Amino acid sequence: MNQPLNIAIAGLGTVGAATVRLLRDHRALHAQRCGRDIVISAVSARDRGRDRGFELGDIQWVDDPLELARRPGIDAVVELIGGSDGIARELVETALAAGRHVVTANKALLAHHGTALARLAEGNGGSLRYEAAVAGGIPIVKALREGLAGNAVDRIYGILNGTCNYILTTMRESGREFDDVLAEAQALGYAEADPSFDVDGVDTAHKLAILTALAFGTEVDFDAIHIEGIRGVTADDIRFAEELGYRVKLLGIARRTGHGIEQRVHPCLVARTTPVAHVEGVYNAVVADGDYAETTVYQGKGAGGGPTASAVVADIMDVARGDFVPTFAIPAGDLAPSKPVSMERHNGPFYICMTVRDEPGVMAEITAIFRDEAISLESMLQRGRAPGEPVPVVLTTHETEEAAMGRALALISGLDTMIAPPRMIRIETL
Amino acid sequence: MNQPLNIAIAGLGTVGAATVRLLRDHRALHAQRCGRDIVISAVSARDRGRDRGFELGDIQWVDDPLELARRPGIDAVVELIGGSDGIARELVETALAAGRHVVTANKALLAHHGTALARLAEGNGGSLRYEAAVAGGIPIVKALREGLAGNAVDRIYGILNGTCNYILTTMRESGREFDDVLAEAQALGYAEADPSFDVDGVDTAHKLAILTALAFGTEVDFDAIHIEGIRGVTADDIRFAEELGYRVKLLGIARRTGHGIEQRVHPCLVARTTPVAHVEGVYNAVVADGDYAETTVYQGKGAGGGPTASAVVADIMDVARGDFVPTFAIPAGDLAPSKPVSMERHNGPFYICMTVRDEPGVMAEITAIFRDEAISLESMLQRGRAPGEPVPVVLTTHETEEAAMGRALALISGLDTMIAPPRMIRIETL
Repeated sequence: MNQPLNIAIAGLGTVGAATVRLLRDHRALHAQRCGRDIVISAVSARDRGRDRGFELGDIQWVDDPLELARRPGIDAVVELIGGSDGIARELVETALAAGRHVVTANKALLAHHGTALARLAEGNGGSLRYEAAVAGGIPIVKALREGLAGNAVDRIYGILNGTCNYILTTMRESGREFDDVLAEAQALGYAEADPSFDVDGVDTAHKLAILTALAFGTEVDFDAIHIEGIRGVTADDIRFAEELGYRVKLLGIARRTGHGIEQRVHPCLVARTTPVAHVEGVYNAVVADGDYAETTVYQGKGAGGGPTASAVVADIMDVARGDFVPTFAIPAGDLAPSKPVSMERHNGPFYICMTVRDEPGVMAEITAIFRDEAISLESMLQRGRAPGEPVPVVLTTHETEEAAMGRALALISGLDTMIAPPRMIRIETL
Repeated sequence: MNQPLNIAIAGLGTVGAATVRLLRDHRALHAQRCGRDIVISAVSARDRGRDRGFELGDIQWVDDPLELARRPGIDAVVELIGGSDGIARELVETALAAGRHVVTANKALLAHHGTALARLAEGNGGSLRYEAAVAGGIPIVKALREGLAGNAVDRIYGILNGTCNYILTTMRESGREFDDVLAEAQALGYAEADPSFDVDGVDTAHKLAILTALAFGTEVDFDAIHIEGIRGVTADDIRFAEELGYRVKLLGIARRTGHGIEQRVHPCLVARTTPVAHVEGVYNAVVADGDYAETTVYQGKGAGGGPTASAVVADIMDVARGDFVPTFAIPAGDLAPSKPVSMERHNGPFYICMTVRDEPGVMAEITAIFRDEAISLESMLQRGRAPGEPVPVVLTTHETEEAAMGRALALISGLDTMIAPPRMIRIETL
């Protein structure tokens, strides 16, 4: 048997503790699969005294995580602290600069500094691995980087945030509104006290930024992503979507277009016949459209100690086997500059929900505005006609340029008969 | 850039031709991802004159495929001939014995000789890769071997044959019987003239044998698999299953039990709320239950030139990068002997459909037989009561040992009121 791989783990929260347990539970199996033992040499975390369900045993405790990057004899540093900057970034940079391998679950770090870190890793002979940063237990990074490596990918998208998917699923099942379901999710511990990273789409965008670089060979460009969260989705929208044969999902989508790579995070109506429509609750799913493989779909738990530790350990095992594929599938120096595409240029069908005063002529006004923008309607739902009362009107359109839709909605918002601003949700053709 | 990887391809049917096209279409991308060029040095196929949609150009044509295994300068042989024995086996054995890498799509070969071939590969310093042998374009071999490598897998199962899934889907959608739908599938080219490998479950079993070895670290043991196909499934069964909240799918299932690894292929009732229930038509899906990753699901096209070529090329690219993980995830010499488990010991719920003469006392007779075997009923459907006429009776049971169910069904078959032998389909709890 070869020399063991000596690793150091920084951060012993839920994921860090599960990683230690997994490495210990299946140590013999891992050694058999890697051809060498994986040894946890040192760990570092904020609170040494906290009960994490295991004894340190012969693992060295280190107070300053940065020391793990410099300590002699460490082959790989596992960064499970989190955050796009601060100590996590410093640790990863120091370890990579020293030619060490780094395994991380840190999506914010990769989304904001991925290209520079990949250059640093590859320039110093180390590898940077981040399977756990996207979709938890689903080995989607490996699938894109290696399993589908022969393909050109045309589109990659997914349900990448379990909290949002749980909220949308519960809204649909219970008919309740967003605020109510969010409060319950917070009480149950499924949503953070400050939920904005999740419900405003930032977490999804972090993951999408990584997937985009990997799938299209472009520099990681978080700032190029159009981001909308799910706060504006109402129980009505979800009910109307159901009636029209759709479900509402928060998707992160990256697509090759004639103008460049379009990257966007927003609620979508997806047909109930598509695989992502059936991914409910805290589950994640990623779909890749390759030119030869065609559509492949990957589902699983996107968060939690066990699934995330599974991804972290897969990366550690790749490092142990000496499998050195470039960080984003092609050498970091070859990544193409990102070329952001404005949402104005997005093309697709739309769902529009308006609350109007039910007066003669209101539909004529609305449909004239769409006609003037050459927007073609696909279906219309109108309910509860009591003259003079507010009535919801739901429309879906055929494929339309977003700029035209924006102009039409601005005009519609200004109509006297409009009781509330119209709500728009993009329909994603999958 | 490093030396190119020189490959030879044996077999230029649909998959072989697509593999050549893919390697040519994305040659620059592949070189960027592998750090070296992939060059097709030589090919061999039965008919040199056939139009395959591409020119040979500087690829050498060789009449005898075996020559590809011996030809100097070839790093890897790609076997796309097929068949568990004969020339395909001889080619693979010769290439491996010569220390060359082999990439193959040949599930029958792996299912019957996988352990010996893995030993041969690993003993001579070559690698044996077979992503394309299971579930076409879905990178499930890589997911199990590397992506989930940290986990102990408790169960792996899937829809592994697109022809069967297409037939079952069409039966459900149209209400038509098996023979009728099979004939149509044959006319459309979705099923072979001799469909028995597909519809009798053999093809599914080939793939399951491979997945089992990979997931559980056991020797490949095709003969240990209990195999039933879909010829016995009726339109009535599918309709009753729907009414009970299930769909009928042909699954290959391998599960760790107290007695050993249970391997079985048979039609199953799966709850409509499970991910595999929504995998329709020619799509395949594989589900892995890992102890840390929990349940992950992989879907895509299980056959066809493009998807299969995608898998073949992913393997070639791994070889080009020098990624040498053992054939079945652990060294071939460490694979545990297979310990077949008899179906008699299988435990699970059952669906039973009987056609009885509607006479007083018939239900009492049937339910007494189940009671005597301590089989607990979960639900019952009874329809179309016209005294003295044949009437279908559908039962589902709670978890039951298969041996007890076998005894009960034998007694029920002998009842005077039984018009046709009862049909049994296992319900799989997913």
